[in-house]
Amino acid sequence: MAELRPVFYISDGTGITAETIGHSLLTQFTDTEFIAERISFVDSVERAKEAVCRIRAAAQTHGVRPVVINSCMDPAVSETLAESDALMLDVFAPFIEPLERELGQSRMREVGRAHAIVDFDTYHRRINAMNYALTHDDGISVDYDDAEVILVAVSRAGKTPSCVYLALQYGIRAANYPLTEEDLEHDRLPARLRASREKLFGLTIDPQRLHQIRQERRPNSHYAKLETCKREVAAAEALFRAERIPTLSTTNTSIEEIASKVMSTLRIRREMF
Amino acid sequence: MAELRPVFYISDGTGITAETIGHSLLTQFTDTEFIAERISFVDSVERAKEAVCRIRAAAQTHGVRPVVINSCMDPAVSETLAESDALMLDVFAPFIEPLERELGQSRMREVGRAHAIVDFDTYHRRINAMNYALTHDDGISVDYDDAEVILVAVSRAGKTPSCVYLALQYGIRAANYPLTEEDLEHDRLPARLRASREKLFGLTIDPQRLHQIRQERRPNSHYAKLETCKREVAAAEALFRAERIPTLSTTNTSIEEIASKVMSTLRIRREMF
Repeated sequence: MAELRPVFYISDGTGITAETIGHSLLTQFTDTEFIAERISFVDSVERAKEAVCRIRAAAQTHGVRPVVINSCMDPAVSETLAESDALMLDVFAPFIEPLERELGQSRMREVGRAHAIVDFDTYHRRINAMNYALTHDDGISVDYDDAEVILVAVSRAGKTPSCVYLALQYGIRAANYPLTEEDLEHDRLPARLRASREKLFGLTIDPQRLHQIRQERRPNSHYAKLETCKREVAAAEALFRAERIPTLSTTNTSIEEIASKVMSTLRIRREMF
Repeated sequence: MAELRPVFYISDGTGITAETIGHSLLTQFTDTEFIAERISFVDSVERAKEAVCRIRAAAQTHGVRPVVINSCMDPAVSETLAESDALMLDVFAPFIEPLERELGQSRMREVGRAHAIVDFDTYHRRINAMNYALTHDDGISVDYDDAEVILVAVSRAGKTPSCVYLALQYGIRAANYPLTEEDLEHDRLPARLRASREKLFGLTIDPQRLHQIRQERRPNSHYAKLETCKREVAAAEALFRAERIPTLSTTNTSIEEIASKVMSTLRIRREMF
């Protein structure tokens, strides 16, 4: 049985940075099962002391030294956390000094800057992108003039989550177009998409997997039949090939990976939020 | 004028980890304007050499040493990247050795594990949570039995983006309930919400800001009037107070911060994806 090990993500903000790097690090150690807990908005020595109590309690419960992944800026807070006797990993510490030297300036010590609203216009653009994704979902609105990307696929191949992710994480206006049975009778792009060729990105999926997903949604329907799924996927792939639309299979691809590939293929440059 | 400095986020996967920590680090240096570029899926020495070309070109263009924030696992790839003469910051390196010592095991060297699909059931739950958020948006479906949290607010106070974020980032089934003018005539919870009391979280917003947001959506409507916004927000806040529903203002709060506060207040423990 894998060893159990408590992990605390501690931050003076949301804890997203600490958790992102911590998660990446810990996925590399497969012999241990980590029990993770997030303690966010630790912006005072008092709150740090509360955190120390929780860390010590976990050490007692599990009889093992906890790991703390810490992104707090205030040295007094970090010193207090160190009193927990956990293994302390400070996510910023190793990089600050080389950056200060290279850039010839000292860092700010403001807490929680990374995932707060720093700039209203940028934040607003992001929220608008999300509203765009929701109103341009599954062909609800067919005005693609403002779209930066249009994901094209058969129903349930992963268009909607990918669009929402592109919007939320990168502020990209992503629309999606569901290929209907009628569209798939032809090897040509539906008329509505032709004007937006350079924005198109095709998603495909293993028919067996599509069948499972559709079964959950509408059990034993014509729509969910394996035969239907096979035929639709084959026709969609033929269409993508004929029209030279860049394509990716979502079968084993996470929405993070889909988003990265879409952006690099269509050369959309955008920073993450 | 701020100094311009090119930054490259280089990864053998999506680049999300590198960019998250890099973004957090760089927001602490306000005298420099960073021009960021993401190079993802750098999983071979050949692709690393291509990246080196791009880094060197940026050094030439801007006449300054670029910063590389690197999360590649393969030492051969990292060595190749170092030939770019950029300031190399390896996001994992400082933490691997202490973790290996503490856990008594060596890390795996598999590339791109952090944001790939490692476990289908977990991934599926996440996608289902997103579908849940979309079908339980703005009172579309009123069956809240499966909800883990129900965000309650007047129209355009930030419910939908917050629900979608909770679902995408944490796999939480988040519904939302829009308070109508009729609901707001009473100081009591709408009947449909009473059974789910412990899942409720109220969002509020500065009326002036709400007015701006609604103006964009339906200019010069009764709905968008500052008077309407003031009245609705005051009534919603009175209701939250009377019913002791935990509340947060979204005016200066990002969806990341809203999600963190909702989870810590309602004690929902869930790891990030």
